[in-house]
Amino acid sequence: MRRVSSGGPEIERLIQLLAKLPGLGPRSARRAALHLIKNRDAVMTPLAQALKTAAEQVRVCTACGNLDTHDPCAICTDASRDTKTLCVVEEVADLWALERSAMFNGRYHVLGGTLSALDGIGPDDLNIPKLLARVREAGVAEVVLATNATVDGQTTAHYLAGALAAAGVTVTRLAHGVPVGGELDYLDDGTLAAAFRGRKAL
Amino acid sequence: MRRVSSGGPEIERLIQLLAKLPGLGPRSARRAALHLIKNRDAVMTPLAQALKTAAEQVRVCTACGNLDTHDPCAICTDASRDTKTLCVVEEVADLWALERSAMFNGRYHVLGGTLSALDGIGPDDLNIPKLLARVREAGVAEVVLATNATVDGQTTAHYLAGALAAAGVTVTRLAHGVPVGGELDYLDDGTLAAAFRGRKAL
Repeated sequence: MRRVSSGGPEIERLIQLLAKLPGLGPRSARRAALHLIKNRDAVMTPLAQALKTAAEQVRVCTACGNLDTHDPCAICTDASRDTKTLCVVEEVADLWALERSAMFNGRYHVLGGTLSALDGIGPDDLNIPKLLARVREAGVAEVVLATNATVDGQTTAHYLAGALAAAGVTVTRLAHGVPVGGELDYLDDGTLAAAFRGRKAL
Repeated sequence: MRRVSSGGPEIERLIQLLAKLPGLGPRSARRAALHLIKNRDAVMTPLAQALKTAAEQVRVCTACGNLDTHDPCAICTDASRDTKTLCVVEEVADLWALERSAMFNGRYHVLGGTLSALDGIGPDDLNIPKLLARVREAGVAEVVLATNATVDGQTTAHYLAGALAAAGVTVTRLAHGVPVGGELDYLDDGTLAAAFRGRKAL
């Protein structure tokens, strides 16, 4: 294999591991490694420690699928949150994005992906049976389906709406429309059509 | 401070440290953190270990300024390399880039930056006194100035050419010209002029 640095096997290995991170290629991994070595005390040693701590302590919340050092996670155990509303997301990253928006004060349910006929992913491969059980047991009044606006995301939302119909809960989904700051001329036709269909009285 | 994740302070801290790497912003640091947690055994734990090892063992070569776990570094102690030629570069990254090109079989000297009147960086702030001593003592016949083709890089090369004039060594610099694969129409005028001036008989 071609060498990626000239700093010995330890630096070599560090670069190869950094290059596995999404968003970093071989070149940026080299830059990152040099940056780390130059900032040994400020970044490198703390990062090594933070990785070790997280690897040892972070686990999946058995209730909702979020990641936290506690199980159940801080969101599930937060007594100030509304237990009647459940927001269903595909991935932990989506949960974090919604939390940053600070629009939602209920609890979450992370599916761990979407249904996909192509990849052979059915309801039992996702966190769906647990979702149905949770809705039945926990006195949930509304389930917000916040899957992505992709084909697989929408298929999954559609499937869930059907599966939840018998449970007697309100099922809602996120609105489609023009993104805030978006220019109509640059929007795809599907979004524009959805925004038009969903127009509201001023 | 605004929270960057909803996974507790350990994940939070990991994301903030990852975001300090060049090439990663807050958003890609979050993606990287999730990727790491999902690939705990394959990437996260090995990366923590590699960072720890490198932080503990990597040092600056006192002869040339390269980074290695040994001092002097593997290049300086490699008996198969030509000791008569010395290639002067700004940073360790430049040394690695030249090593990857496999064009050079001499030794290196890393300056650690460039002269800069604006930032108040003079010859004594760089690895220049050691370069001059090395050229005098080590029987060097040729010094290749491989600083960047920037204003500061060229200023530094010019200064070094002057300082080395008295040492009785041949001083050369890298050729300027059209990059391999480059299209003339997209080149800046300076490069084009340099390529024209440096034209060679076919």
